[in-house]
Amino acid sequence: MFNRVAIIGLGLIGGSIGLALKKANAAEQVVGYDQGRGVSERACKIGAIDQEYASMTEAVNRAELVILATPVGVVRDILQSIAPVLTAGTVVTDVSSTKTQVVSWAEEFLPTTVSFVGGHPMAGKEVSGVEVADPELFKSCIYCLTPTARTCSTAISKVTSLVEILGAQLRFLEPAEHDGLVASVSHLPFLIAATLMNTVGEDSTWRDASVLASSGFRDTTRLAAGNPEMYRDICLTNSSSIVHWLDAYVSNLSTLRDQIAMHKSDLKEVFVKSQYLRQQWQTSYENKE
Amino acid sequence: MFNRVAIIGLGLIGGSIGLALKKANAAEQVVGYDQGRGVSERACKIGAIDQEYASMTEAVNRAELVILATPVGVVRDILQSIAPVLTAGTVVTDVSSTKTQVVSWAEEFLPTTVSFVGGHPMAGKEVSGVEVADPELFKSCIYCLTPTARTCSTAISKVTSLVEILGAQLRFLEPAEHDGLVASVSHLPFLIAATLMNTVGEDSTWRDASVLASSGFRDTTRLAAGNPEMYRDICLTNSSSIVHWLDAYVSNLSTLRDQIAMHKSDLKEVFVKSQYLRQQWQTSYENKE
Repeated sequence: MFNRVAIIGLGLIGGSIGLALKKANAAEQVVGYDQGRGVSERACKIGAIDQEYASMTEAVNRAELVILATPVGVVRDILQSIAPVLTAGTVVTDVSSTKTQVVSWAEEFLPTTVSFVGGHPMAGKEVSGVEVADPELFKSCIYCLTPTARTCSTAISKVTSLVEILGAQLRFLEPAEHDGLVASVSHLPFLIAATLMNTVGEDSTWRDASVLASSGFRDTTRLAAGNPEMYRDICLTNSSSIVHWLDAYVSNLSTLRDQIAMHKSDLKEVFVKSQYLRQQWQTSYENKE
Repeated sequence: MFNRVAIIGLGLIGGSIGLALKKANAAEQVVGYDQGRGVSERACKIGAIDQEYASMTEAVNRAELVILATPVGVVRDILQSIAPVLTAGTVVTDVSSTKTQVVSWAEEFLPTTVSFVGGHPMAGKEVSGVEVADPELFKSCIYCLTPTARTCSTAISKVTSLVEILGAQLRFLEPAEHDGLVASVSHLPFLIAATLMNTVGEDSTWRDASVLASSGFRDTTRLAAGNPEMYRDICLTNSSSIVHWLDAYVSNLSTLRDQIAMHKSDLKEVFVKSQYLRQQWQTSYENKE
């Protein structure tokens, strides 16, 4: 059981972690801070935290575990702000979507008496805010942890037990490995969806086309509704992996475009392959759920 | 009420039309033909047709309405085969995904005593076959009809009543207009999804990445599981519209790639736009449902 857990950032993810900790009765005290007007108060009201703080540094004071549940773009500033007030032995983790930058910021700013373990729960909704927080959000989802050679084993075991309390499936990865993998299955799909939405949605034919758009369009563009700041931060902190995948993708799409322009009937082979790969993945995904 | 309706092709769409006609008691007799082994028999068994025929020409004999519910690639051959045996006054319609080619084939091969009205129900599932046929499949979906100046009004009114029986929402479009619009909201999303699936699914990192892929990946790639022959036919019969949209899409994605490579923070504006457009569309789509 944790003594005092501090959650910085009480949106969907931070709020859901708080609810899960409270539900499992896994911490003596869960406290929180959010810079948004009235957010901490609402988090208190729904029972995601026991106590709200108006200051981040007060919130993390004497905490055994600090969880940074903010967009990755502000993690650097937060680490700098809390570094001077953290108690020796405190373990800090985060939940942001890219890990290389965050881990290097933690190594740069946190005192050596404090341990950092990068984390990334592969869960989410296209809506955000503490209002949609859910203690079951992480059930059977993959939760990546990216400790480095510098990370002490006590810190790893504390964050591992957090993952277990959340009901998620633990996966250890190198920070750079993590960022390369999520660029392909998470960041690339978002950029594809957002660009599809903008390409058709800004065209003069959209007024007529939008009426014909159906469930296929709905699903392919779903991610385009995601939080713009979060995705900007992801692009800024994982640009080389993302650019690598965008180049591979555009190259394949351009080849396909030429095959279509030339009426090549071996197009079918391309679609047989994607059908096979998708069905294979779907089966393993459903078995996991 | 229709006298005799013949359905050629008894997959998801043909089977669902049969079930809907029978459920509404809208035809004295619904007959069918499918080249697949045992398909007509199964269609009979689930009540999608009253009688199966081993020959397409016998099935369409004396039919008041003939519905071609096959992939667009075989429509040309079917029109050529049935043209000599159709009774004067018969109305022929189809359900295929592209209309310009189909309408021009109908004008080329059908006798002037027979009327053709191109049709396209904007409904489907990623699974196919008469086993998943559903009389409610077309409820409140958009059903496009593409009559031309040559189409007689009796034919239009017969196919219009079919659309009403199916519970769908009628929309009249020019064939070329239809093909341009569906290229943007239906064919482009498929090609995007299939290429995403192939790009990440054939990479050496896929084994590790596939485990991290979650609901966002699932939705963005859903269309990739679609029928390869149907999509090949769509690409072959709608190539110029599709190439136009692919070019616009690749151009936008390449611009975004450069913004990410250069760490431009105005990236956020791109994502604010896609979020806005997606939320707008989602609202109108939900109101329609």
